[in-house]
Amino acid sequence: MRRMPNSPLLPLTEDHLAKLRGLLSRDSLLTDRADFGPYSHDETEDLRSSPAAVVRPKNSAEVVEVVRFAHTHRIALTPRGAGSGLSGGAIPAHGGIVLSLDRMQQIRSLDADDMVAEVEAGVITGDLMRAAAQIGLLYGPNPSSFDICTVGGNIAENAAGPLSLRYGTTRDQVLGLEIVLADGTLVRCGGRNRKDVAGYDLTRLLVGSEGTLAVITAATLRLLPAPAARMSLLATFPDLESAAAAVATVCREVPAVAACEMVEAEAIAAVASLETVPEPLRSAGAALLLEVHCDQAEHLMSIAEQILALVEPLGSSDLQVALDEHDERKLWHLRRQVAHAVKSLSVYKEVDTVVPRSRLAELVRAAREVASQEGLKAICYGHAGDGNLHINLLRGTLDEERWIEARDRAEVALFDRVVALGGSITGEHGIGWTQRQHLARHTPPELLATMRQIKDVFDPLGILNPSKIFLDQHPDSEQETAEVSS
Amino acid sequence: MRRMPNSPLLPLTEDHLAKLRGLLSRDSLLTDRADFGPYSHDETEDLRSSPAAVVRPKNSAEVVEVVRFAHTHRIALTPRGAGSGLSGGAIPAHGGIVLSLDRMQQIRSLDADDMVAEVEAGVITGDLMRAAAQIGLLYGPNPSSFDICTVGGNIAENAAGPLSLRYGTTRDQVLGLEIVLADGTLVRCGGRNRKDVAGYDLTRLLVGSEGTLAVITAATLRLLPAPAARMSLLATFPDLESAAAAVATVCREVPAVAACEMVEAEAIAAVASLETVPEPLRSAGAALLLEVHCDQAEHLMSIAEQILALVEPLGSSDLQVALDEHDERKLWHLRRQVAHAVKSLSVYKEVDTVVPRSRLAELVRAAREVASQEGLKAICYGHAGDGNLHINLLRGTLDEERWIEARDRAEVALFDRVVALGGSITGEHGIGWTQRQHLARHTPPELLATMRQIKDVFDPLGILNPSKIFLDQHPDSEQETAEVSS
Repeated sequence: MRRMPNSPLLPLTEDHLAKLRGLLSRDSLLTDRADFGPYSHDETEDLRSSPAAVVRPKNSAEVVEVVRFAHTHRIALTPRGAGSGLSGGAIPAHGGIVLSLDRMQQIRSLDADDMVAEVEAGVITGDLMRAAAQIGLLYGPNPSSFDICTVGGNIAENAAGPLSLRYGTTRDQVLGLEIVLADGTLVRCGGRNRKDVAGYDLTRLLVGSEGTLAVITAATLRLLPAPAARMSLLATFPDLESAAAAVATVCREVPAVAACEMVEAEAIAAVASLETVPEPLRSAGAALLLEVHCDQAEHLMSIAEQILALVEPLGSSDLQVALDEHDERKLWHLRRQVAHAVKSLSVYKEVDTVVPRSRLAELVRAAREVASQEGLKAICYGHAGDGNLHINLLRGTLDEERWIEARDRAEVALFDRVVALGGSITGEHGIGWTQRQHLARHTPPELLATMRQIKDVFDPLGILNPSKIFLDQHPDSEQETAEVSS
Repeated sequence: MRRMPNSPLLPLTEDHLAKLRGLLSRDSLLTDRADFGPYSHDETEDLRSSPAAVVRPKNSAEVVEVVRFAHTHRIALTPRGAGSGLSGGAIPAHGGIVLSLDRMQQIRSLDADDMVAEVEAGVITGDLMRAAAQIGLLYGPNPSSFDICTVGGNIAENAAGPLSLRYGTTRDQVLGLEIVLADGTLVRCGGRNRKDVAGYDLTRLLVGSEGTLAVITAATLRLLPAPAARMSLLATFPDLESAAAAVATVCREVPAVAACEMVEAEAIAAVASLETVPEPLRSAGAALLLEVHCDQAEHLMSIAEQILALVEPLGSSDLQVALDEHDERKLWHLRRQVAHAVKSLSVYKEVDTVVPRSRLAELVRAAREVASQEGLKAICYGHAGDGNLHINLLRGTLDEERWIEARDRAEVALFDRVVALGGSITGEHGIGWTQRQHLARHTPPELLATMRQIKDVFDPLGILNPSKIFLDQHPDSEQETAEVSS
């Protein structure tokens, strides 16, 4: 298979801007650099790149206009949701146009019989969750940013959250997509059907493609029966190994467990540096936070007893159960505070690792070793039931230059250890801009080449979110690339 | 994107056979046409095409040899599991080599902590289900052919079954694949991780690709917590509409429902033509068969009461509950007998339709209308919870010529109605050979072209299962095509 010769992307000129103005309603185009700030970064630490224009379409027809324009004039186009991503997926690495879907916030339909929602890409995930709840249904994946992130961004990155243990990632919810192809063609992919094996599954290929294959303007999403009852539980363990063993046992034996999060000793200590953490949690080797969903409230206590019987032999001396929202919030406070504590303690780098569930303890130990070798501290927490831990490398007292060297070496060493454990270099944050140089540690060269060719099939001119996922895109156009400060 | 010029596939010569003999162990190659019978068809009605050779590799290394050989010599290669497919996916439409994975039956590992199985492609699905059960876990999808079909075939067609309502299709279980690419490269795709967003999701793109993109030699599959308790229920309804309303209500309100199958009046009548069917089932407009899975046996009766409270207002006068295997088998007998009854009544054509759940009653009425217009009878049954009904068009007393005309016209009319209902032309059987001319009714031309280009990326010479899914493959080589009798 020959590659299409990549043509260079061109810079956006005043002439282009004048043409764009003619295509869009007045409030859909931002051209004043003073307005570009929010569109120049996502939530990745220390990463900025400025666009040359920002388009905020009101509807799919305006998206078509912008994509067609970018295609005709070979302008880089970076689709963007809320910018809450953690791998630089939404930064305009080549300058060009940021295509922000944030104004497309319509929930087009909610259907309790089909159990599907059709929503525009800019709908806030939390709004979808609440709308589903109002008709007695559940939208499953709950990334921690659910109150600000968008469904379109979730689909682009295949986002997940604590409840993905039971309900799957964003990919598992997507039945159909409305997309704009690289040449500006609006087309529907998939539909409202729970099963469909007609041809290749392009719908789910687009999920997690990080805006590099097409622009997603709307999605048809599966909703689930809402659980009639739920509770949260907090279990502390003397050491990492017993907590990891409990993760495996509880996830296997108790199907009602919908979320299983872990916070290890260093993460507990980080929270304790901000506020009082009571015993036995304060001295625990690790703690697990469980959320249980079940069909009937009267079953909750027998499930709690079942969990107690599983974790006690593993050394858990203290199982706290929260049955109402107030108590649940108190239990989850620890888990929610870790990210805040990390940020308040030090400059940091978050690494999004995933391993098979049985390798969790080894992963945390590897993170500690790797960090320690570089004079850094590692703080680990996250979606233990899915084997997905966020490992935060903390700069501590290192100076800037030594920090950057140590951080980069530690990241490489950590990824090598993760891959050796049978894991992956990202569980839910995506490759985006920041992980491109590591993808080859995970993906064999033949498959990387195949992915690159699939990119060419969808986007032969390379205008869609250039220089994401792949290192090698558009060597000709590197001189056009806006400087990315990292 | 330009298409690679398709080079013609070449016929297999005696010289080729001599070379193949040198590459494989003696019992891995069949060259006597007398042995080709089983490899010339699948379970699709009236469809045969003979290969020029059959290879039955013992291991992945032999698969590599065969694929490399076919690639070098441009020989058509048709991967095959058990041949239980229903769209001609495994028939060697171009002659050439049938690559039967049926001897690769090793369960390489079962891991109760990671909750994954790694199995070779030829493992019988039922053997995997039983192996998982022995370690207290569940392999979810249970196609009705589970005792004969293979995991590799299930993956190729993205097979499903009654339990897919709760546990998803085969695609939802596949974490990783061992594949042989079209040039003979053995490579691993994905892994053992429950989450992984590093690059495009090639693993799930390969699921359902019907052997046209790569040869699957082994898979790493997700296992689930086995339910502690289960029961089956049979509910009869006065008419189709009330049964369809019950499908929506029960699937929405009772998350413990793991399967929801429908048998409508004509299907009940078909079974009644073979054996005594008791009232009120005999006169029912439709019946639903439910399977309930839950965590604790003591919850079963309250779930049965909940279901009763939902179906009674919809006119169900009779809810039978089966709590042990013997009674379950009796309840499921009706559902299992329908396919047998159809076959014994008449020559038939099975059409695998899927619609959004709320359109089920309309689908059955459309099937009846379309059949009646052509002088045929329609018998509908299947996975109602997933909106997936198998519609059997019966020849009855029509002569052969009129049957073929009527059948083909009815199929087209039915697909048009299905698409108008927002459905798809195949829920679980795949496009294969038999549905190729209908794919364009479902898939927009831009996406069909994209699929075709993805085929070229994986298989630029077009050796892998040629003339499946797409109508337009290898126009140059049609003269090499073995005649397919249909």
